[in-house]
Amino acid sequence: MRIAKLREQLDAVGADAAVVSTLINIRYLTGFTGSNALLWVDRRSARLFTDGRYTLQAKQQTAGKGIAVRIVKGAAFKALEKFKDKYQGKRVAIENQRIGFTLATELKKLFRIAKLDNAIERQRMIKDAGEIAAIRASVDLNARALVKALKTYKPGMSETALAARIDYEQRLLGASGTAFDTIVASGPHSALPHASPRNAAINRNGYLLIDMGSTQADYKSDLTRTFGVGQPPRRAKEIYAAVLEAQLAAIDAIKPGVEAQKLHEITSKTLRKYKLHKLFTHSTGHGLGLEIHEAPRLGTGDATVLEAGMAITIEPGVYVEGFGGVRIEDTVLVTPTGAEVLTPLTIAPKHWTIVG
Amino acid sequence: MRIAKLREQLDAVGADAAVVSTLINIRYLTGFTGSNALLWVDRRSARLFTDGRYTLQAKQQTAGKGIAVRIVKGAAFKALEKFKDKYQGKRVAIENQRIGFTLATELKKLFRIAKLDNAIERQRMIKDAGEIAAIRASVDLNARALVKALKTYKPGMSETALAARIDYEQRLLGASGTAFDTIVASGPHSALPHASPRNAAINRNGYLLIDMGSTQADYKSDLTRTFGVGQPPRRAKEIYAAVLEAQLAAIDAIKPGVEAQKLHEITSKTLRKYKLHKLFTHSTGHGLGLEIHEAPRLGTGDATVLEAGMAITIEPGVYVEGFGGVRIEDTVLVTPTGAEVLTPLTIAPKHWTIVG
Repeated sequence: MRIAKLREQLDAVGADAAVVSTLINIRYLTGFTGSNALLWVDRRSARLFTDGRYTLQAKQQTAGKGIAVRIVKGAAFKALEKFKDKYQGKRVAIENQRIGFTLATELKKLFRIAKLDNAIERQRMIKDAGEIAAIRASVDLNARALVKALKTYKPGMSETALAARIDYEQRLLGASGTAFDTIVASGPHSALPHASPRNAAINRNGYLLIDMGSTQADYKSDLTRTFGVGQPPRRAKEIYAAVLEAQLAAIDAIKPGVEAQKLHEITSKTLRKYKLHKLFTHSTGHGLGLEIHEAPRLGTGDATVLEAGMAITIEPGVYVEGFGGVRIEDTVLVTPTGAEVLTPLTIAPKHWTIVG
Repeated sequence: MRIAKLREQLDAVGADAAVVSTLINIRYLTGFTGSNALLWVDRRSARLFTDGRYTLQAKQQTAGKGIAVRIVKGAAFKALEKFKDKYQGKRVAIENQRIGFTLATELKKLFRIAKLDNAIERQRMIKDAGEIAAIRASVDLNARALVKALKTYKPGMSETALAARIDYEQRLLGASGTAFDTIVASGPHSALPHASPRNAAINRNGYLLIDMGSTQADYKSDLTRTFGVGQPPRRAKEIYAAVLEAQLAAIDAIKPGVEAQKLHEITSKTLRKYKLHKLFTHSTGHGLGLEIHEAPRLGTGDATVLEAGMAITIEPGVYVEGFGGVRIEDTVLVTPTGAEVLTPLTIAPKHWTIVG
């Protein structure tokens, strides 16, 4: 099915076959998760080339998908030499945006090359039922890990210790790992959008920002919550309310047919009401799935039209140097009629909350 | 100093400048750890191109190294266009083994290209005093995390729970993360050299194999210990003794002037005495530092001559299908007169040990 769709792309780029070399795209098209592979897809066949470490695994993971597994000694591209004569005068498409220079150079010696550009990534934007279930499970696990980790918070706990605890709870709940380096940032440190946790006590009387993601069954989740610690000044709650309003406005606008950048306009416009828009320094969100950052990008210039089956994050933020930052993020599914927030809000609610 | 050595490599490849695009090599040459950068090195200057997110960080991390930081909007390679005229007829070297196809294609439009091959990776093989201190600290932390995690072992604990605990203890001790996915494998499952932890109780009356690494201050460590659980059969202890003998024999042979592959010959020959050599299915070890796998590779065909300052792992293993596997691994520093085992053996000893 996924390979059939790739074949449709071959027509669009004027090629008769494709060589897929990006491992995450091979995972998407075949199910294979090994660390060494090349996938050849032509009009009639699909062949996965890997090495002897993966003989059994490759057969199991690709079973029933019409993919022939071939075990190769040495560099996998050597196995493509046999197609050289048959594809004289035809074009073979490569993932020109992601392929390495060495492999591209070798393939150019064998074939006339066409460019797939982001054809597979565009295909991956629309999730099927199995993928939606996997993202839903990852999002659910991630929210539960946040709650469990927060229960261990005590005044004096360091940002790094809370981040480590979050990662630990994710694993105990069944995650294979984090989706990215967990952010735990408090007080003025939370004003850095990509703060690294510090080995220092979580600041009191300000913000505590936690941005975390899990990987479960290869699929990612992404969640940000910002809390108050102790007795934050009134301004903290006011900024929080503005960011939440912006986030809810964007979620409210999600439906098939809307442009990705429109959601960024909405969050920006809402924050402008409170004169906070200049302190919102990143985009409104991104697609996610097998990778934590996938298309579309919910920012200025991305005219991708939303379609049912897209999984995206909505995560406006406001960052006040010397004071702190607020970001509120959920993973949202685009449905035929609108949007479904996948984050379980009974587990990870969004009203202004004071911890510890 | 490191950039001066890269300039010496320019002579060797017939180039007047180099474009370094691999982030880990940029980290090595400049100290910069951001996620977007290009480094231009010519005969007289070194310029680091990155984006506005990293203005402050880039200046701080490169301070005092004679590197000019340039902030670029959009694709960093565009900033190299200004060198085009000056370098007409000269060659500019690229990391042909690691560069992406897109960037290489753009650079070819601007310059005549020379190939750096693995020049920077070869330079990185020899660690300086600061790097050795960083690896030593990472190795020490890693061993302490193993001991702390093992103290939480109870019969019935799952492989995934122990792996999660190991990662958690690493973080609490100051690691920024693991160096690779932690392996915890028991019973027959330990016969897979790259086993993933299972969500199932650790088998009793057999082996418990743990392979773990930490990242601290960007530097990696790597440690494998194999224990007995409960009452393993006598054969388990016998195989363990053979693997330990092979490991100690290789460590004993380490000194400047010895070829990397010679150490693999020694482990293989020792295991041959016990008719176990055919069950040793991987190489004897690898360099490590900023990456978990660096040159040299201690396997057949690697004629790299050991030099003082190399940090390598020694990790022979024997894998018996249906029974289990043993691997014993330390991180070892090549010294002017021989070798220093960096693993603190008082913390992580190597005699046959029964846990739980």
